[in-house]
Amino acid sequence: MSILVVGSVALDTVKTPLGKGRNVLGGSATYFSISAGFFNPVSLVAVVGSDFPSKYLSLLKSRGIDLRGLTTQKGETFKWEGEYGWDFADPKTLSTCLNVFAKFDPKIPAEYKKNKYLFLANIDPEIQENVLKQLSPKLVVCDTMNYWIENKRNHLLKLLKKVDIFLLNESEARMLTLKENIIKAARALIKLGPQIVIIKRGEHGSLLFSQRHIFSIPAFLLEKVVDPTGAGDTFAGGVLGYLAKCDKFNQANLKKAVAYGAVMATFAVEDFSVRRLVTIRYRDVARRFKDFQRLSCF
Amino acid sequence: MSILVVGSVALDTVKTPLGKGRNVLGGSATYFSISAGFFNPVSLVAVVGSDFPSKYLSLLKSRGIDLRGLTTQKGETFKWEGEYGWDFADPKTLSTCLNVFAKFDPKIPAEYKKNKYLFLANIDPEIQENVLKQLSPKLVVCDTMNYWIENKRNHLLKLLKKVDIFLLNESEARMLTLKENIIKAARALIKLGPQIVIIKRGEHGSLLFSQRHIFSIPAFLLEKVVDPTGAGDTFAGGVLGYLAKCDKFNQANLKKAVAYGAVMATFAVEDFSVRRLVTIRYRDVARRFKDFQRLSCF
Repeated sequence: MSILVVGSVALDTVKTPLGKGRNVLGGSATYFSISAGFFNPVSLVAVVGSDFPSKYLSLLKSRGIDLRGLTTQKGETFKWEGEYGWDFADPKTLSTCLNVFAKFDPKIPAEYKKNKYLFLANIDPEIQENVLKQLSPKLVVCDTMNYWIENKRNHLLKLLKKVDIFLLNESEARMLTLKENIIKAARALIKLGPQIVIIKRGEHGSLLFSQRHIFSIPAFLLEKVVDPTGAGDTFAGGVLGYLAKCDKFNQANLKKAVAYGAVMATFAVEDFSVRRLVTIRYRDVARRFKDFQRLSCF
Repeated sequence: MSILVVGSVALDTVKTPLGKGRNVLGGSATYFSISAGFFNPVSLVAVVGSDFPSKYLSLLKSRGIDLRGLTTQKGETFKWEGEYGWDFADPKTLSTCLNVFAKFDPKIPAEYKKNKYLFLANIDPEIQENVLKQLSPKLVVCDTMNYWIENKRNHLLKLLKKVDIFLLNESEARMLTLKENIIKAARALIKLGPQIVIIKRGEHGSLLFSQRHIFSIPAFLLEKVVDPTGAGDTFAGGVLGYLAKCDKFNQANLKKAVAYGAVMATFAVEDFSVRRLVTIRYRDVARRFKDFQRLSCF
């Protein structure tokens, strides 16, 4: 079952203690598409500027991503610059230039409307809602960030009523619900609309909550992290990619989906940009998934 | 196979956002013994003062713990006072009065020397080594804390050469090895002597490392934490209790042992002191272990 993603395609300049990537391919929709593409066909809706390198367009095409929804506008591509410390946790943003992304008003191409799975990557919840109005997907997965919780809380709350799976990190869950205990925070989030809430805890694994179940997935440790940028969107790509492939949302599939998400994220952080993700094959994903099962099930 | 523990029996005064316990039963050897006692007979070596309440002696006896190694000395029992904030992480120590524990010089009773399993709870590594000299156990498990890493580093390093399983938390692992990456830190620890290193990450689960394997156990989330005091020693009790019961250290048993440790710790934190631990039965442990498998294996 094919997946539609609406989000950003960007040029990132990232500095980590292990090196630097300048104007490398980034953006939530980029990481998500490449990750989900290991499991399923993906259609992308995003905007880039006239400066967007053709080599990156070719790269996205070579991954089999449907780019009919990627528009090019006069001006510069969305650019983000950030720096990570040795803890490889939240980066320090050095600059954010929205450029053509500032007026992003996604129109879903008619040929995309058949997509049954929708990923609303982290953008303004008003835009996320506008996208949703143009479609009637079987499953809606949505990401967000602290900025929207602070500045567009009401729009986000309105959107969440129509979302099936809500992805966010631990501090965002606390921020949105004002609950310190993460189980209580998750319960409060489920009351806001989503049937499933997935809480990302970075190197500490992730948690999946439904009305009746909790699933806790451990850390998948890596000896070498090069660049954590895009880990969350790559994780989302693994989750939704696997779910769409199964096309059935039982507890066993949901657990495996979260584990596939974690596996995909481990590849993303092993190099700058999507470099590592585009050198692996599905058999590498399958092998790491098996390793993950071995290291965490008892 | 019976287990010998050498550590502290204390009176704790603990304040948490959910209440207060004054001069309640505490100490590393207490939590460990009650926890390990669910799986195996336990013999205890510790010292208390003449003020130690007889009701606590009766409680320890009623758990079937062999107290022939518990000596009573003139003076006051070891007292610790601490306070936890809403994050229920590292407590603020308000006072530590070692009292009779200051001159703790454990002599292992002859009838204890048959114990095949030894837990050296968190005390001065010099004392831990003195204990080890009096015995020839099949398996030595050792805990420590930042204070000894800072102040008795060389003694600790000497001790570690004779330890089979080393338990410590994440920051202690980094502190002892000067390595930020936890996999690298664990490898460095294994080079110091222990075959197995177990790294406790509190609410983020735990990690088990051997020469060839890594095992990552996720968080077991609780909606209500009342008092985290003793969680680490209760965890150790579950780990060693289960291992001693199996009396065989293959990978599958080691994984299950860590999971039983996590399960035991969840009970410990549900009330002040050992209150919750002494109200449960083995069937409650078995039930929670099954729940844990369900929530974390995929």
